[in-house]
Order: sequence, then structure tokens, then C-alpha cells
Amino acid sequence: MDYSNLRVNAKRLRSSLEEMAKIGGTPGGGVQRLTLTDEDKQARDLFVRWLMEIDCEITVDEMGNIFGRRPGRNNALAPVMSGSHIDSQPKGGRFDGILGVMGALEVMRTLHDNGIQTERPMVIVDWTNEEGSRFSPAMVGSGVWAGALKLDWAYDRRDVNDKRLGDELVRIGYKGGAPCKFFPVHCYYEFHIEQGPVLERERKKSSVHQGIVSLLWGDVYITGEGNHAGTTPMDARHDALNAAAEMILRINRLPSRVGGNMLATIGEIQNHPNSRNIIPDLVHFTVDFRAWEGDIALHAWDLLCEECQGIADRYGCPARFEKTWHVDRSPFDEKLVQRVLDVATEFGYLNMLWVSGAGHDASYTNQVCPTAMIFVPSIGGRSHVEVENTRWEDCEAGCNVLLHCLLRGANELEQKK
Amino acid sequence: MDYSNLRVNAKRLRSSLEEMAKIGGTPGGGVQRLTLTDEDKQARDLFVRWLMEIDCEITVDEMGNIFGRRPGRNNALAPVMSGSHIDSQPKGGRFDGILGVMGALEVMRTLHDNGIQTERPMVIVDWTNEEGSRFSPAMVGSGVWAGALKLDWAYDRRDVNDKRLGDELVRIGYKGGAPCKFFPVHCYYEFHIEQGPVLERERKKSSVHQGIVSLLWGDVYITGEGNHAGTTPMDARHDALNAAAEMILRINRLPSRVGGNMLATIGEIQNHPNSRNIIPDLVHFTVDFRAWEGDIALHAWDLLCEECQGIADRYGCPARFEKTWHVDRSPFDEKLVQRVLDVATEFGYLNMLWVSGAGHDASYTNQVCPTAMIFVPSIGGRSHVEVENTRWEDCEAGCNVLLHCLLRGANELEQKK
Repeated sequence: MDYSNLRVNAKRLRSSLEEMAKIGGTPGGGVQRLTLTDEDKQARDLFVRWLMEIDCEITVDEMGNIFGRRPGRNNALAPVMSGSHIDSQPKGGRFDGILGVMGALEVMRTLHDNGIQTERPMVIVDWTNEEGSRFSPAMVGSGVWAGALKLDWAYDRRDVNDKRLGDELVRIGYKGGAPCKFFPVHCYYEFHIEQGPVLERERKKSSVHQGIVSLLWGDVYITGEGNHAGTTPMDARHDALNAAAEMILRINRLPSRVGGNMLATIGEIQNHPNSRNIIPDLVHFTVDFRAWEGDIALHAWDLLCEECQGIADRYGCPARFEKTWHVDRSPFDEKLVQRVLDVATEFGYLNMLWVSGAGHDASYTNQVCPTAMIFVPSIGGRSHVEVENTRWEDCEAGCNVLLHCLLRGANELEQKK
Repeated sequence: MDYSNLRVNAKRLRSSLEEMAKIGGTPGGGVQRLTLTDEDKQARDLFVRWLMEIDCEITVDEMGNIFGRRPGRNNALAPVMSGSHIDSQPKGGRFDGILGVMGALEVMRTLHDNGIQTERPMVIVDWTNEEGSRFSPAMVGSGVWAGALKLDWAYDRRDVNDKRLGDELVRIGYKGGAPCKFFPVHCYYEFHIEQGPVLERERKKSSVHQGIVSLLWGDVYITGEGNHAGTTPMDARHDALNAAAEMILRINRLPSRVGGNMLATIGEIQNHPNSRNIIPDLVHFTVDFRAWEGDIALHAWDLLCEECQGIADRYGCPARFEKTWHVDRSPFDEKLVQRVLDVATEFGYLNMLWVSGAGHDASYTNQVCPTAMIFVPSIGGRSHVEVENTRWEDCEAGCNVLLHCLLRGANELEQKK
């Protein structure tokens, strides 16, 4: 069969996204649909109703992950799978996560409308607690599914009101009976907004990532000498915040020195005693380095330690540098990545190959099955904010790429590799 | 009478300070004697007992200020007065405040031992809530006495547990019946530790201040663009903390540019959302400028606004600069200041004239009666910390200066000026 003229229904995709955006909609035009709240339940219920309308088999596993399965011609074959998450940041946008779920749903609706039967079954998934805003950490549903996190540990995550994730699953009626455990998947595609400004700046309609970058987290602690702001001459001070300021400037300049599109962020700072008229005696700040080449982040960390030690010495403020987390990059499946590029090129979409600086559920699926992601531009590069936005025509383009990637995967009879 | 050989009893001064240091003594060698707590009451009771032992008339006013009056030959004349405060910082030292109270007590005990009658009465005072650590602001007892603060407003100050200052005065039995109101005082001397490193560095035994410096408080607010740390290229960022770091460095360098021994302190910083992997979108920090010449602090503030605006523009981070408080310098009484210098020189103590960067109860008394202060060195310049320390021989020297300044004032018959 030649499906080359098959396209998704852009109007229906938009209307589904708009209907979902009403659930937990904020006055600022975003959504607040924290995981396992009443809003999450309401959105899940609507999603399940839509799955049933196209005759999907629904499975909810013990982590609350929802799977909708569309049978294929040969149901003994491993399915193709796609999805993302319904939950949002506290003041999140209308596309983050939900675009990947509604996009996969639109693919299935398109197949349903056209009476297309695929060789392999096709599965759509909503992963529980991708954001990690209510229950830390992020990507817990996919993490347990992939075997990287323990189920009981996940159940024990608590929100600020001390509610357990496990109890909240029961409360909203989404603690399912199926084991939360990896099953064979032929290929997994996740469709997502970029959450950064690169595609817009490069005037591309879509992109695919080679994989997820390596990440290094560090913590810097600087000890100064607390003293009275009114009685301590400038040249007798050991001001921990002043030393920190010089370090922060230095660290922000590291990426341009080490190259490789490295990113460096100081997102968090604690200052003690944080009193207007006392010279700071203790400062802690965090460091977040990301680079596709893991060596670059490690090299930058070495430079940081050496140069910030010099600054600390100059201020007479002892400093401690702790590398607290380092994960190597996670390259996506080359064949799946190439297929995204091919499909986008066939459709005439300006597209590009890039690396992802952000974590996604695809990070965990990538550990157990061939995985790739499809990205569409974020207007102004904004995300995790209410003004997050994406053009409807870009949503449509990305969804068409998803449709054809899934279709090709679903009609591929031989097991990959 | 020639009193030139009269000296205080250094051993008794030390033993009184050591006994006081037991009340609220901390494992770290400091004291925690927050205002109007049980520890404050215990120390007040001991102080009152000691005053009674030398036949002082005790008056407690409605603010809990304790006055011990030693009659003179002519009790119609305005008294000389000296004192400081018994309350401490949460983890304060064994000299801050209490040295000025025990020092004045030692002066009176010395006069008592030697049967010396002065022309004028002599009054010793313990001011309530100088520190402001439990009930903000600081120097409330002397402020109400000088008419600068309202009594009812002072009563309504609340601690973190929502206890009212007025209620706590009643609870510990120190809400007295006398009105808290300025009465004529011939001269007021306050004896205090320096709380800075200058005397030690200059190898002086004591100093007197010309007055209290002018003070300028400001607040800087910087708005950045919150974004994902993993998806936002370095050159597409508007990082409010990075801009703040550059401003903090610049501000710390202002004193060396404007001269006049100006001090600049950034003591407090708030960063939003203060999350490890989000680019900061809002930073607030405080500015504390102190200089003897008020124009210098104002000039520095103008430079700050101009130069930090340039930094803000470069980062694309709008900034707001608010001058929130400015008080002009408060010069002490010239004749009293000169007397401190004269006495110290007669005794052969290396001494110096200096300016005070810190507020003291003397700031308020200076508004209504001739005032000067006597300072002795702080070891390592440390204060408001448990390791705060002063040599016993320096306590003795300062106390002898206080004795003779008070004695000369008390025997001065004509009203000053």
C-alpha cells in the first residue's frame, strides 16, 4: 500500500489540544495539571474516553501509566509505541507533554478513519509523573517501567502536603492491575515541543535529536567570615557572596572557552545569614553543565575547580567543590533517528539534527527499546511557563512526521537489528 | 580633690562580666540572652541586686529601661549618665552591650569604695532591646526614651512566636511605672567593644568616635527570563543571577573608587525560582553603604544606578534601583569627644579618633543630650558571634577612661553650652 498522501487531521488535533487545555487552564493562558490531582484525573478520563471511541484496548498499570493498544495484523509481533505525559508544571504551558499524547492519538484516529490495518500493533502511552513538580523526581512512570526505578520507592514519593504518590494513584482511581514492567517494543517515538529557541532561530520546522546530552551537576560551598557591615573595613573582609559573584561570572564564561555547545547554569544560590547588614559567611550555589561530548563537561568541571579555588584563595574564603552527579550521554537509535530525518525531508519540512539538553520519558525507554524523538519549535524558545506556545501548522507538521515514522515501523516485519 | 590616681578594680570588673556570661552561656563560649526572655530577666535581677548593694535608687520605666541613680552633692543638677544593654544576639558574645553596663557599674563601685561624692548625681542605665534580634527594630528602649519612637508602637513589636514586646515586659516583671521619657542629662558616655578590626590593626588601646556615619540602604531588583537550563543556548539567555553577580562585583569595588573609607555590603540576596535547572528570572539583593561624609554614599549610589543599569542592559535584564533609607551622620558632642581623647592620653593609652559604622543606644541619646562613646579593641575584629572577645587589660583601660570622663562631667558645675 502507498500511504504517501496520508495526512493527519490538523483541525481535530488542534481541537483536542484546546479541549485538554481547558482542564487546569490558568488565567495566564497556561495549564496547571499537577500529577495525580483532580485535574490530572479529569484529563486522563477524557483521554481514555477518546481511546475507547477508536476501539483501543486500555491497560492501566500499577504506576498509573495508561496504554491504549490498537491491534495489528500480527499481534504476536512487538508493537510500535508512542506517547508522552498529561501532567504539567505548576504554571506550565498548553503543549509540554500533552502534544505527544494528543499527537499519537491523532495518528491512531487517522489510521482508524482510513481503515488502515498495520502489521504490528500500535500502542499509545501516557506516562505518570513526568514533570516531577509535585512528586520529585521527574520521569518516574517511565523509569519504573524501564526497570531503572523501584515501584515501592516510587509509591513512597511525597508531595509538600506529605501525600504519598501511591495513595494518590488509588485516590484518583488510576492504580491499575497490570504490572509496571517493560514489554518488548519494536520502536518508541516521542513527539515533543523543543522548549528552547534553536529551531525558531534556525528557521526549521522540525528536528530530531541524536540523543540526550551528558549532564554534570556540582555544588560549590564558600565559607566567609561573618562580620558587622558597619565596622569591618573593605580590606579586612572575607565576603563569601563577593567571592561567589566572581565565581558565577567565571563559570558562565566557561562554555565559550570549552566549546561544543556546552551549557552552564547556576540556578540556585543560598546565602547565610542573608541579613542586610551582616557580611555573608556561607554561600552555596549549584552548577549544571550539559554537553553532547561528556568529556567537555568533565573538562569544564576541572577548570571550574582550579579557577574558582584561585578566586577563593584571593578572598581568603575556603571553598569546597563537589561533583554530585554525572550521567553520560544517551544516543538514540540511529535507524529511528534517520527515519525521522527522511520523512521530514520527503515532506519538504526544513529540519535538523540536534541534541537534547532536557530529560524526557524517552530517556528511560531508550534504555530498553529503540527510541527517537521528534521536536517542533517553541515560540520564543519559552517553556515551563504559561506563555509557552507552538504554531498550529508546526504541530501538524510534526504530527505528520510521527504518523509516517510509526506507520513505517508498524509495517516493518523483521525485528530491528 | 585630685583623683588622678583613682583606678577601677579590674579583677571585680572581670568577675562581674564572667558571672553575667554564665546567664545564657552557650557551649561555643558566647551568650544567648535575647531581650525579655528568662535569661534577660535573670541578668536584670542580678544587675539590680548589685545596684542595691551600692545604695543606688532603682527606677524601671514603662519600657523596662533600668536606671540606677547615685545621688550627688547637688541633686537639682542634671546627672551624668552611662550604660548600654544587657540583651544579646542569638549567638552573641560575652562583651557586646554588657561591657558598657558592667563598666559603668564598676565606676560606681569604685566611687562607692572610695567614699567619693560627686557634685552631680550619676545614673547607670540598661536599655531594653538594643539588639532587635527578638523584636525588630534595634535600640527600641533608648529610641522611646529619646522621643524618636512611640511607646505603643514599641509595645506592639512581635517576635517569631507572635509574642508582644509589651506582654513580655509584664511577664518578666520589668514593665515599670515611671514614664519612658527623656529627662535632662548633663552628659552621656557609652562604653563598648569596637566590633571591628581597626583598633587591633592600628595597635590602639582605645578610641572615641566623632559620631555615627551616614547610612544608605538600597534594593536592586533584576528581571531575567526563566527558561530550561538544558535547552537554552548561552547566547539566548537573560540570566538574572549572572547579571546580579556582575553588579555585586562592581558594587564591592565602589568604595576604593569613591574614597572616604566608605563601606559597601551586599548582605542579602533572593533568587527565583532558585531551582537547579531553571535559568533565574528574578533576583533581589540589598545594598548597605556607610560613610562619614554623607555625600560620598549618595555619590556612590548614583554611580551604582548608572553602572548597574549598563550591566542590566547588556544582559537584557530590566533592573530597578530603589534607595530605601538614608540617614545623615550624627556627630557626637565635640567637648565630650575631646575629653575621652584627653583622659586616654593622660593615662598613656595609644588611642585614636574614628567614626562608628554601627548603631548604638548612643545614637538616640545623642539626639537629646551631649553624648560620646569609648571603644576598646575586639580581638580579630569579630562581633555578633560566639567567638567575640576583648582583652581583660583593654576592658580595664577603657573602664578607667570611662571613670575619669564621668567623674569630670559629674564635677562640672556649669551647664554645658
